[in-house]
Amino acid sequence: MARDINLGRGLDQIFQPRSIAVIGASTDPSKTGGRPVHLLKKHGYAGAILPVNPKADEVQGLTAYASVADLPQVPDLALIAVPGAGALEAARACAERGVPAAIVLSAGFAEQGSEGAARQLELRAIADNSGMRVLGPNCLGTVSVPEKAIGTFSVALENEMPAQGPVAIVSQSGNVGSLAMKMLGRGGAGISRFIASGNECDVDIADAIAWMAGDAATRVILVCMETCRDAARLTLALDIARAAGKPVFVLKMGASDVGKAAAMSHTGGLAGADQVFDAVFARHGAVRVKSLEMLVQMGSAAAALGDRTVSANPSVSVIAASGGFGIMMADAAEEHGLTLNRTGDAAIEQIKAVLPLASAVNPVDATAQMSANPETFGALLSAVAGDNANEVVCIMMALGLEVPRLRDTYLAALDAARAAHPDQVFVACVAGPDDALQILNAKGILTFPTIDAMMEGVSHLGRLTAEKGKDAGGARDIATAPLDRGSVATEADAKRVLSAAGIGFPEEVVVTSADAAGQAADRLALPVAMKILSADIQHKSDIGGVELGIVGADDAAAAYARIMTAAATHAPDARIDGVLVAPMITGGTELIVGTTTDPIFGPVVMVGLGGIFAEVFRDTALQPAPVSLEDAQEMLRSLKCFALLDGARGRPRADVDAAAQAIVALSEFAARHADDVAEIDINPLLVRDQGLGAIALDALIIPHQTQTSEAAE
Amino acid sequence: MARDINLGRGLDQIFQPRSIAVIGASTDPSKTGGRPVHLLKKHGYAGAILPVNPKADEVQGLTAYASVADLPQVPDLALIAVPGAGALEAARACAERGVPAAIVLSAGFAEQGSEGAARQLELRAIADNSGMRVLGPNCLGTVSVPEKAIGTFSVALENEMPAQGPVAIVSQSGNVGSLAMKMLGRGGAGISRFIASGNECDVDIADAIAWMAGDAATRVILVCMETCRDAARLTLALDIARAAGKPVFVLKMGASDVGKAAAMSHTGGLAGADQVFDAVFARHGAVRVKSLEMLVQMGSAAAALGDRTVSANPSVSVIAASGGFGIMMADAAEEHGLTLNRTGDAAIEQIKAVLPLASAVNPVDATAQMSANPETFGALLSAVAGDNANEVVCIMMALGLEVPRLRDTYLAALDAARAAHPDQVFVACVAGPDDALQILNAKGILTFPTIDAMMEGVSHLGRLTAEKGKDAGGARDIATAPLDRGSVATEADAKRVLSAAGIGFPEEVVVTSADAAGQAADRLALPVAMKILSADIQHKSDIGGVELGIVGADDAAAAYARIMTAAATHAPDARIDGVLVAPMITGGTELIVGTTTDPIFGPVVMVGLGGIFAEVFRDTALQPAPVSLEDAQEMLRSLKCFALLDGARGRPRADVDAAAQAIVALSEFAARHADDVAEIDINPLLVRDQGLGAIALDALIIPHQTQTSEAAE
Repeated sequence: MARDINLGRGLDQIFQPRSIAVIGASTDPSKTGGRPVHLLKKHGYAGAILPVNPKADEVQGLTAYASVADLPQVPDLALIAVPGAGALEAARACAERGVPAAIVLSAGFAEQGSEGAARQLELRAIADNSGMRVLGPNCLGTVSVPEKAIGTFSVALENEMPAQGPVAIVSQSGNVGSLAMKMLGRGGAGISRFIASGNECDVDIADAIAWMAGDAATRVILVCMETCRDAARLTLALDIARAAGKPVFVLKMGASDVGKAAAMSHTGGLAGADQVFDAVFARHGAVRVKSLEMLVQMGSAAAALGDRTVSANPSVSVIAASGGFGIMMADAAEEHGLTLNRTGDAAIEQIKAVLPLASAVNPVDATAQMSANPETFGALLSAVAGDNANEVVCIMMALGLEVPRLRDTYLAALDAARAAHPDQVFVACVAGPDDALQILNAKGILTFPTIDAMMEGVSHLGRLTAEKGKDAGGARDIATAPLDRGSVATEADAKRVLSAAGIGFPEEVVVTSADAAGQAADRLALPVAMKILSADIQHKSDIGGVELGIVGADDAAAAYARIMTAAATHAPDARIDGVLVAPMITGGTELIVGTTTDPIFGPVVMVGLGGIFAEVFRDTALQPAPVSLEDAQEMLRSLKCFALLDGARGRPRADVDAAAQAIVALSEFAARHADDVAEIDINPLLVRDQGLGAIALDALIIPHQTQTSEAAE
Repeated sequence: MARDINLGRGLDQIFQPRSIAVIGASTDPSKTGGRPVHLLKKHGYAGAILPVNPKADEVQGLTAYASVADLPQVPDLALIAVPGAGALEAARACAERGVPAAIVLSAGFAEQGSEGAARQLELRAIADNSGMRVLGPNCLGTVSVPEKAIGTFSVALENEMPAQGPVAIVSQSGNVGSLAMKMLGRGGAGISRFIASGNECDVDIADAIAWMAGDAATRVILVCMETCRDAARLTLALDIARAAGKPVFVLKMGASDVGKAAAMSHTGGLAGADQVFDAVFARHGAVRVKSLEMLVQMGSAAAALGDRTVSANPSVSVIAASGGFGIMMADAAEEHGLTLNRTGDAAIEQIKAVLPLASAVNPVDATAQMSANPETFGALLSAVAGDNANEVVCIMMALGLEVPRLRDTYLAALDAARAAHPDQVFVACVAGPDDALQILNAKGILTFPTIDAMMEGVSHLGRLTAEKGKDAGGARDIATAPLDRGSVATEADAKRVLSAAGIGFPEEVVVTSADAAGQAADRLALPVAMKILSADIQHKSDIGGVELGIVGADDAAAAYARIMTAAATHAPDARIDGVLVAPMITGGTELIVGTTTDPIFGPVVMVGLGGIFAEVFRDTALQPAPVSLEDAQEMLRSLKCFALLDGARGRPRADVDAAAQAIVALSEFAARHADDVAEIDINPLLVRDQGLGAIALDALIIPHQTQTSEAAE
């Protein structure tokens, strides 16, 4: 059944309920069913708390009700903390009572075998049929810091609520999300909301992202995900967040490639499932990070950045009180692709005026002079921040804020510099103390605990800017159309349909006799390649079915005979349609272009370096199909081998536009025929000198193995 | 003047002085000259403290002396804290009095222009002439924790001495080293000694490493370096540490490539200066890390590891209380090249017995069951640790040690598991609290603050084992021999001498007329390549000086004429020695093999992928020359393109041994002629199918530009 794509519906009641029923409320505040009541009371939730417990009149000082039906009002939100089958019954009672939203904290569903999975399907049916939104099951629930609305039994709230701030956490895993919440509380920018979606029978992270995009308390969204259950919902949610100007950072777990063994084409073998996520996130404006620490740090950094932005390739100046740290910062900046600002003469003069022994050229080494005279720090900051070309000022604070003698002077200098240069971005490398970090973040000064994290973080902010401007759609939507799978079985078939789709192939002739082969070779004049044509033989060279560099009629006739003998020997059962005679076109760069079908995101187009090096260097770019011409050009530019296409080492510049057009055409073909086509290889696509086009020399289309496409479900 | 290579001489007096004179001792404990006296007293140094101050009878409660000459005894160590010229005078007085060692804390030397540099040369002369060891100048000095011997004015000691432990810090930069010292004190394994060597006029980090290798208080050595001033001393020191069984971890700053612009050969352009350090460290058993955080973490980890080792490719099991963390740990393990252990049936049964809901197969997900019943942790650990194939148990602790209810149970379970499985390595991913980390480290349980650091750290320990077994020498020492630079000017010359050195070249003929070219082509029968021969033309193709695929006498004669015309047009002033006619040999994998001269480490041999992809993918391996056959084979195996040589994609296996022998021969040639040869290119070296050898098709030797070699200085 198709899911409702009305993203975020009913999440007002989940995040901002005026009343919360706790079903399975326990009198013992340490128990799963007792803890939400305890936490709601402890942290001062202002709405009504309605415990449901058939065995008690009172729970933790509150009037308890025997059943959902007995509740004196319809609660906005029901927390369901009774196990397995009982949870299902409670959900049904809530739906009947007209409760708009429920959080099923209980485990015992799809994570526990087929019986649990059946139970989860029932839960989903309750949600679908009643319109009640259901978060979970098997989830850690929610925390809304501004309203103190707690829909969780998490021990993370035992001692204190997280500090309030503008960062929302949207996680599938409860444990990972709540560690992120804890970390952000410590010296971070603070939390607006937390949601852990567990098994996602109904409400998913797409709902949560879309809702956070419209939430006044949230300015930055952090996502921890293990999987995506619905591509369209996820990408729409990311588009909504981008349109709302809320940065999204994603930690996607499970980066090791899966399902690759099953791929049948070269493209399938080269395109990693995880790489598709990279492409999807980038296209929809979310910045992917590699660790929980970086996720949390980006939350605080983006919050501190506020309305400012850094450009896609920011100019960075580096300040340290030691040459060693300066070099390390410059190394890290270079490693993360940042441009080191060339310090201007005026700035150099100003620095030398206050710190005569300083090395005033970026990376600026203030020397021990600075810690001896901490009041010089302000003048130094001002000189660097005033430097015209500079966008980001990166400062190594080391233990500076832990030394009482230095702390207040340094904080005041940073504050003054920030006020005097409101558009500049100041970033401090400092690991503590937590209270000083919170002060800096609140003042709009970014902090990172290590040099490497600092430079990686600044480059992530640059990516955010680069992705912000992109068209969310990528390319126009393409309606699917059926393709007769039998009509694309041979190489000649594949070339014919792809040629009709706009991909250039050389003229070639199919022959079925040695004589005809000779005539064809004569007519084409160039050296020719001859290849066996059979739907039953996919790797033609392996069986001796390919002859190259054949010149003239006699040689062609002899080659024909050799090919037929080889086929008869090595593939005696293959049905042979003849031999393809094609001119050998040389002089160009070989790419491989292809498509594959991602189990989540559907057809995907890939381009990579062709030839024997493709698999060794895995120099590939990948995008969900269809792609726009601009996307295709960016795919090509992102290849390491792009320098070769772009005229490196005195080579002529290749026809990059023609290659990009071929990628677009192929991506549109794959999107149009997504229901029938599983994988396509064009290998090689020969990209010739500028103006001479890109010519496909071989093509293979692999249909889906089943008659109705699995991938379309 | 050649430096004394008697490493570590006199450092007993620096690290374990029985008496310390402080020259320039101030009555004000906050001043540079007052602070050492203050710190020595405060932290309870047991030896004699002898302040020298011409203006005071007493300094901070101690009898002061007017001059070095007036001291009542010859101190083991003098701390010199008077500025510039005064420091020189003080050093001279110490040398005259027979003081065995001095630390010049004062700045105003080579770091400050030519006047300072001259002063530093004088200081070095004092050290050389007297035999007094001098540390510094412009250095942060030393700390010996066991003896409370303090030779620094560092504010890092203001509040407390670092916790005592087995880790020594050897740093050139004072600031970087002292931050490392501070970090190791916090939840780390603790410090034995600290030394910051500053300008290194005499004592250098090699002295310090060698001395620490013999120091009973030190078990692990951490090195922070910006540069190496003497390759032989550094590599000898690393060999000494390896022989003593003391792991060395190095943070080398300045990773960005320098000096590349000046390179004249392809090899020079491909070989990064920083890559040479990687090769040198690996050969001499030091593990290089990329950040200060990782350096410090490896210090604690290696200390906790003690006498145990992990194998070069350890089998790792992962335990988390959440599926999300389990996946992240498995991802990180894979990324760092670790092998995930296949959980055995017995272990699975044991895990299921205590945690029925757990996912018992690596990565083990203990689920929330574990935090609800923390006493199950011990049984879980025991089951995983008892699994036969498993070497390292990696445990995600997250905030576990910060929850009072869990902390003691978890610590006790780890302790018991460690006792029951003394050979297993237990690693906890936990960021705090510091006191719990110290307890774990002391018990021999490794800790890392993040998942990524944990897996990177385990892989570093594996590298340590891999490097431990290597031969420090690499290859036999080779005496240098002169080479007539004029005798290697042309391609034919280069081929002749390299052929004599054992590198295979095809038969080829030098011709000086069109007729002779025709005869040569006839005789060689194969298609031939023809190349202009001139010492004045290095990039022959660029001027039309190369013709390929020439068949037969007529074509060869015509090609000769074209080449001569091209040379006359594009290089009219070049002296032409003729044209080289060589058979075109195809069918093999093209490598580039070459040598270059590293300014610090001398001749270096490089191998990389040849052809147009070499510069795009920078797939190269590099070693100081000469290399052994084993080194050369390892260089080849480390290339990404090695799969192509090794028979990937159905290709025949290439003659890897022949390629390795060519690398060895070239490296020995470069080492032998290091005084005269700057760079060599063999491009391409065609590696043919196994048994058919490796044939060099082109060769270029570039001599040093000056008559007496600069590099040998």
